[in-house]
Amino acid sequence: MVKVLIVYYSQTGNTEKMAEFVAEGVRNVNGEAILKKVSEASIDDLQEVDAIICGSPTHYGHSAGDILSFIDEGVVIHSELVGKVGGAFVSSHNIGGGNETAMLGLLHSFLVHGMVIQGTAEGDHYGPVSIGIPDARVKNQCLKLGERVVQLAGKMK
Amino acid sequence: MVKVLIVYYSQTGNTEKMAEFVAEGVRNVNGEAILKKVSEASIDDLQEVDAIICGSPTHYGHSAGDILSFIDEGVVIHSELVGKVGGAFVSSHNIGGGNETAMLGLLHSFLVHGMVIQGTAEGDHYGPVSIGIPDARVKNQCLKLGERVVQLAGKMK
Amino acid sequence: MVKVLIVYYSQTGNTEKMAEFVAEGVRNVNGEAILKKVSEASIDDLQEVDAIICGSPTHYGHSAGDILSFIDEGVVIHSELVGKVGGAFVSSHNIGGGNETAMLGLLHSFLVHGMVIQGTAEGDHYGPVSIGIPDARVKNQCLKLGERVVQLAGKMK
Amino acid sequence: MVKVLIVYYSQTGNTEKMAEFVAEGVRNVNGEAILKKVSEASIDDLQEVDAIICGSPTHYGHSAGDILSFIDEGVVIHSELVGKVGGAFVSSHNIGGGNETAMLGLLHSFLVHGMVIQGTAEGDHYGPVSIGIPDARVKNQCLKLGERVVQLAGKMK
Repeated sequence: MVKVLIVYYSQTGNTEKMAEFVAEGVRNVNGEAILKKVSEASIDDLQEVDAIICGSPTHYGHSAGDILSFIDEGVVIHSELVGKVGGAFVSSHNIGGGNETAMLGLLHSFLVHGMVIQGTAEGDHYGPVSIGIPDARVKNQCLKLGERVVQLAGKMK
Repeated sequence: MVKVLIVYYSQTGNTEKMAEFVAEGVRNVNGEAILKKVSEASIDDLQEVDAIICGSPTHYGHSAGDILSFIDEGVVIHSELVGKVGGAFVSSHNIGGGNETAMLGLLHSFLVHGMVIQGTAEGDHYGPVSIGIPDARVKNQCLKLGERVVQLAGKMK
Repeated sequence: MVKVLIVYYSQTGNTEKMAEFVAEGVRNVNGEAILKKVSEASIDDLQEVDAIICGSPTHYGHSAGDILSFIDEGVVIHSELVGKVGGAFVSSHNIGGGNETAMLGLLHSFLVHGMVIQGTAEGDHYGPVSIGIPDARVKNQCLKLGERVVQLAGKMK
Repeated sequence: MVKVLIVYYSQTGNTEKMAEFVAEGVRNVNGEAILKKVSEASIDDLQEVDAIICGSPTHYGHSAGDILSFIDEGVVIHSELVGKVGGAFVSSHNIGGGNETAMLGLLHSFLVHGMVIQGTAEGDHYGPVSIGIPDARVKNQCLKLGERVVQLAGKMK
């Protein structure tokens, strides 16, 4: 069974809602979703899973400092995440609100860890973006992210 | 009087509509707007203006090849654009459709030319993004881009 | 056997040299490397392979227009590249010469195609970067990219 | 007199050395350089200056969490930085080590604050990049960044 850690930071609840949808997507294809606020996640969590999906609101074009710091703390296990799968989702106040730069900042960090990422040819190409409260479109994108990550991680095992 | 070249590529008319709104913004603050399809623009146009604003649909996370090639052809006048002001606007099919990466690809090119760019603290931070047909929100962002660029170019003169 | 298309654009021969090293890396792990100048590559080539690696010099912070146009032309087979593996390498005149933005522009395009990419925890994290003529360090990075892509594409089959 | 805040985070001393070179560049053109470790800088500092230059090592493709958090804390004075000038410099272990993504992460944040940035047509286009200990090339790039920012901020006043 593919284990997926979903780590998120949420202030308004929008990102948390997205995290729950992503977890639902993981379970839809028989993955195990471990859902944690970043304040509750540890480096041990990173090691125990096949895939890591991070979610954050958009702060000045990047994701929340707590999420970025969490990824950076992974330096103590640098190279142990090689080949694991990464994914990301973000929420934002506006279209053009820095959401893609925030998303890609996370995905680039996963690449530096030697991880594997996949886009999607339909919808939000780099990962789900919610403008304000997640709607049906966003839910669908989040479900698909969860499913896609499980399927990719399954191939990587 | 500040002269602003607005160069765009448009397939569906959405980007062209945005270009017209940006031109309106330029004129609102007494700038001269020179609006051209990229196929009609020349290197001479780049030299004669104080500011260059490029607009494009989003193709695979970057702007249209014709726009990028136009910027690249500017290599023959490399360093002559230093200190001129740059701006960008993009249209896209989806939220999360690669619009910010397309926009920033243009802005990064302007930086390589030694140009000056400015974001906005409100709305679409890097430049206007339209999802499909430009609506009132997009029109407002485009007007503000035109105004902002004129004001910045005025200070640079 | 994993088939890898290596498509490149080269003006000075630096990018071509990198392409040859990447091909050597592909063959080192029993992959089939198909090496083509972008002017000789076709959409059919994209469909027949398991992985696509693009190489380019750095032009104003992005890769050569011909490479970007080639990727864009893939729109006629949009969604047929889903799950294939992508990789990139770039050459540049300077450290800080726009090489990472050029590289990531390619990788982002692959994500929009629904493709899979992997970074490396050691060396050039997003893909090989050569400053001027490829040296031993660059050769090593290119070999490893070729190997990494074959291994990843093998898992994806 | 143009006042420039140079805020940096340094672990090995490489980024600190770059910060000192940038400050020297600021003073070379009669600017006032205020050099602070990020741990000593405050939001008040941001308000009192005409330009803000941030420096950081490269951590997983972005700048140090402390620098990013400092920029984010500026949310309490959101829109008060509009029109101020921003600049960035980074150090990194490797060519291709995530230095441009770290640099641009900072510059993008400045754009979200509505700030003004400028690239350079020569050398490190987005801002100075040091690979390991700053050498003569890096010193020159840092001096030029300091000078460029003062001149731009002078025009913005």
